[in-house]
Amino acid sequence: MTRLNEDARGVYVIALTPFTENGALDLESTDRMVDFYLDRGATGLTVLGMMGEAQKLTTEESQTYVRRILKRVNDRVPVVAGVSAPGFAQMKALTDMVVSDGAAGVMIAPPSSLRNDQQIVTYYKQAADQIGDVPFVLQDFPLATSVTIPVPVIQAIIDQIPTCVCLKHEDWPGLAKITALRTMAAQSGGRRISILCGNGGMFLPEEMARGADGAMTGFAYPEMMRDVVRLCNAADLERAQDLFDAYLPLARYEQQPGLGLAIRKYIMAKRGAIASPALRKPGGELSRDDIAEIERLIARQARRLAELA
Amino acid sequence: MTRLNEDARGVYVIALTPFTENGALDLESTDRMVDFYLDRGATGLTVLGMMGEAQKLTTEESQTYVRRILKRVNDRVPVVAGVSAPGFAQMKALTDMVVSDGAAGVMIAPPSSLRNDQQIVTYYKQAADQIGDVPFVLQDFPLATSVTIPVPVIQAIIDQIPTCVCLKHEDWPGLAKITALRTMAAQSGGRRISILCGNGGMFLPEEMARGADGAMTGFAYPEMMRDVVRLCNAADLERAQDLFDAYLPLARYEQQPGLGLAIRKYIMAKRGAIASPALRKPGGELSRDDIAEIERLIARQARRLAELA
Amino acid sequence: MTRLNEDARGVYVIALTPFTENGALDLESTDRMVDFYLDRGATGLTVLGMMGEAQKLTTEESQTYVRRILKRVNDRVPVVAGVSAPGFAQMKALTDMVVSDGAAGVMIAPPSSLRNDQQIVTYYKQAADQIGDVPFVLQDFPLATSVTIPVPVIQAIIDQIPTCVCLKHEDWPGLAKITALRTMAAQSGGRRISILCGNGGMFLPEEMARGADGAMTGFAYPEMMRDVVRLCNAADLERAQDLFDAYLPLARYEQQPGLGLAIRKYIMAKRGAIASPALRKPGGELSRDDIAEIERLIARQARRLAELA
Amino acid sequence: MTRLNEDARGVYVIALTPFTENGALDLESTDRMVDFYLDRGATGLTVLGMMGEAQKLTTEESQTYVRRILKRVNDRVPVVAGVSAPGFAQMKALTDMVVSDGAAGVMIAPPSSLRNDQQIVTYYKQAADQIGDVPFVLQDFPLATSVTIPVPVIQAIIDQIPTCVCLKHEDWPGLAKITALRTMAAQSGGRRISILCGNGGMFLPEEMARGADGAMTGFAYPEMMRDVVRLCNAADLERAQDLFDAYLPLARYEQQPGLGLAIRKYIMAKRGAIASPALRKPGGELSRDDIAEIERLIARQARRLAELA
Repeated sequence: MTRLNEDARGVYVIALTPFTENGALDLESTDRMVDFYLDRGATGLTVLGMMGEAQKLTTEESQTYVRRILKRVNDRVPVVAGVSAPGFAQMKALTDMVVSDGAAGVMIAPPSSLRNDQQIVTYYKQAADQIGDVPFVLQDFPLATSVTIPVPVIQAIIDQIPTCVCLKHEDWPGLAKITALRTMAAQSGGRRISILCGNGGMFLPEEMARGADGAMTGFAYPEMMRDVVRLCNAADLERAQDLFDAYLPLARYEQQPGLGLAIRKYIMAKRGAIASPALRKPGGELSRDDIAEIERLIARQARRLAELA
Repeated sequence: MTRLNEDARGVYVIALTPFTENGALDLESTDRMVDFYLDRGATGLTVLGMMGEAQKLTTEESQTYVRRILKRVNDRVPVVAGVSAPGFAQMKALTDMVVSDGAAGVMIAPPSSLRNDQQIVTYYKQAADQIGDVPFVLQDFPLATSVTIPVPVIQAIIDQIPTCVCLKHEDWPGLAKITALRTMAAQSGGRRISILCGNGGMFLPEEMARGADGAMTGFAYPEMMRDVVRLCNAADLERAQDLFDAYLPLARYEQQPGLGLAIRKYIMAKRGAIASPALRKPGGELSRDDIAEIERLIARQARRLAELA
Repeated sequence: MTRLNEDARGVYVIALTPFTENGALDLESTDRMVDFYLDRGATGLTVLGMMGEAQKLTTEESQTYVRRILKRVNDRVPVVAGVSAPGFAQMKALTDMVVSDGAAGVMIAPPSSLRNDQQIVTYYKQAADQIGDVPFVLQDFPLATSVTIPVPVIQAIIDQIPTCVCLKHEDWPGLAKITALRTMAAQSGGRRISILCGNGGMFLPEEMARGADGAMTGFAYPEMMRDVVRLCNAADLERAQDLFDAYLPLARYEQQPGLGLAIRKYIMAKRGAIASPALRKPGGELSRDDIAEIERLIARQARRLAELA
Repeated sequence: MTRLNEDARGVYVIALTPFTENGALDLESTDRMVDFYLDRGATGLTVLGMMGEAQKLTTEESQTYVRRILKRVNDRVPVVAGVSAPGFAQMKALTDMVVSDGAAGVMIAPPSSLRNDQQIVTYYKQAADQIGDVPFVLQDFPLATSVTIPVPVIQAIIDQIPTCVCLKHEDWPGLAKITALRTMAAQSGGRRISILCGNGGMFLPEEMARGADGAMTGFAYPEMMRDVVRLCNAADLERAQDLFDAYLPLARYEQQPGLGLAIRKYIMAKRGAIASPALRKPGGELSRDDIAEIERLIARQARRLAELA
């Protein structure tokens, strides 16, 4: 099967974990969700991500879920699996499992105990040693990990670890980081890895203009990200931004810490991508006021898109 | 002079601290900035705020700056001064200074050492004892203070400390908190204090709909906040949101951690409100890419506002 | 088999996870370590603890390790297993596994996302619902979890959740907390749960005098904790402290963050309790200077104990 | 007057801020405290430290206090003043004030916003530019600042900033850091700066053996630090440790977070160094149990010292 590489681009959607109302894994919705993402332009999927509910799965459920995703995707696009873990033994076990099941690569976030440049480089070298020749995504998400990875450290990881093929860029928003990495690679002639951006897509036009290759995030309207990436690649930044602006009020609302995932699941259920918006406990719960605001923003978004069409 | 009270509403702009290119206090720009804010609908000003550069002033400069602000405002609107400090002696000294110079009230953020409900209530009781009958704003900004203040604690402070007249609401975005506080006050018949919202105005329409009285933040276009508050008060939520949406792409850009203040000063200088966008060190610096993006977003915003007019 | 209950007392040793030099689980050393602990007065064992290397085990290894421990203990003392997890599904799965294998109870630390009193109580209620009638230890360790649990919250958990039978007290050192809990229980006539103290035993005499029932920590000389607990229970506080003081220089050295576990394993290997002091990566590594200091402190400790004998 | 330089050694006591029972600055106790420290071997004093109550002073009180200290010291030993501040303007103003009053140098801790190696070096360069030729102490105290400064960064600061003459070492306990810095300086032929250690003296014998020049901390028995430093310098490590061990039970007790300063003031008042143990609010308060434990430890310490004499 495909291996993830430096050419990853487009929209890698961070997949939800669908549950039934009573909290069981919902595998039929998993299939439907895969189709939903691929129909709306996903060029890859990312599962078992840090902020999702994959953390709430047992090991057996994780395997069941990932296998179901991989089966449904059926090699149409690469699937990346998060394998961050407190120890290398679990990281290796999880990597072996998902890769043997067909994943194209894995994603590794730094443990929050890392406190300086050298420690970060060493950690990634040790991790890469453990997982062998499996390509990995470096997840740079300081708000969640408390680890800040400066540009020279990312560059050192790129230079020293050939299996690091992609940066999930989520240093809010860290536009300067993209520029610096692209400039460095151009000047040094070093390897140019893929940069896919997070933050719910809230800075996607600027990120693309700075040299990103696409998005890796879970906004409930993947078609926005698909179209913004396409228009930016076609150098039509104004139309990209017009489209982006139409989605921004809802993207902003979905990006709320604590409640964001419940909002995303509500929209995905409303759009028919999953059967139930249920989260496993502990998880945010929407009030009637929240739902009224979401519905209002969805209606306004539809009107604005119609005006633009 | 006026004392701040529970009826505070509208737009309390968090004022910048203007500097000259070589880093000196720019008092002429301070006057101009005051006029700029008041001409665009500010119903109050807040100075010496936590995130601003007031922290970079010496005690003497702080006094000079606050006096200049107060003289220029000349009692047209209330001025609130941040007096958060590691100890109560400084808090009291600073409060005495600004109040004797004419401030209408003070703002107090919790020290990051507070770790549970009871400690927070006790801290505010002790602080209120120190500053006597001066009305104060409770600043609830977990992202900056690391202190989460749950609704029952805010309610206890309101119930037990009559000089707490206003909540600066900045629990990102914490819409449920506004709803809960308004419901509690309605049900218990307790005192209804003013709620003014932060977060760069990024959730202002929803905050108003939930029961907020206005904004207390520093977005470089106070007229947006003025008009959104006015339209929400007139129950014209759709037009409020239309206007809000036009400003949102730039508001989002200005809200970037680390760089936000430099962006705000750039825009304020461009609009003629201050002479120089200079920050005192240490402070963020804009790249050519950043400036190009800001200019593009300003131009787009102007076009969108023209379409709406 | 025995269920953990409110009468837990003495020394619950936090067990190491022994590895061979090449990083594999060392099951023979696991047996030897169990004997070592029980021969030196352990009245219980705690496995899969938060700070140990159990985090570095795969799920399969965890099960193998716990089963080996339980088999060797063979019901001589109760065994508690840490089951803290990001989601309740894993917590339940892990609890079911260890309890069906013979564990007497489980230990649950609060997730670092909890931010106020009510959230903590709710979390423990939900957790207790998940694990059914299995008795659990509430782990209060702010330095590691970033969650501060005030006394009224602990009391509320005791009052509302009958399966909470023990507090692992590790709020550095939080002597006042022990006093407050004991006073509250005496005054209200509420349930008196077991309090076992952590912090490497560094405050054991004072903790016992305040009303603790013993220790739950991993100091490499369990006999110190056994004797201090015994002497304190016999109201011979001076002899308890004499003994304690003899071990204190080394206890202090072993309590170093980052390096502490490597020091503890070094001593345990030297004492013959385990075959190798090896840690799994990532883990602290001792320098020659460190080892020389440990050896010196061990020699001094032996001399001082001889003087006291 | 004397300027602090790379030869600083011995015991720089972190001075208390004495208050009267009603919270006013107690200047007579300030004199008495200076004499107390100098009589017991202080080779320097440090005032306005980060963790002390100097933070609770107004600017005027700070100046009054520092002047009183300097007058009483009367050039007998160097006095270092903490000048850490949110902005460089205050840092410069405070530095100018204390140096013109006679301070020998200043101490600068990194602001908690610094997040990587380069930012730390840049910050210290900018700070050094601001304060001109005034020698400064680099305060490395991660537990309080949340900033971890790796050895190569300290070395870069030493290499690039000649006015950095001393490291206040408080990376709990970071013995390896001392060894690494001394090895680096020896190998590179670079400048050897003074290293004075904190952590309440809890690792002083080991720190001296690793190459430290003394202590900079506030333990209420400066004579312990004086004698341990002297004996270590005389290569009599066993007697140094014997003495150290006698004080360790109380040093451990005094080192409790939250309560430590109240304990230290209690002992200092009992020893006659200050008139009242009062802390300014907010501050820890001792219970009867706390006081009984302190008295017991003091009595035991006296007996143990008599045995050793």
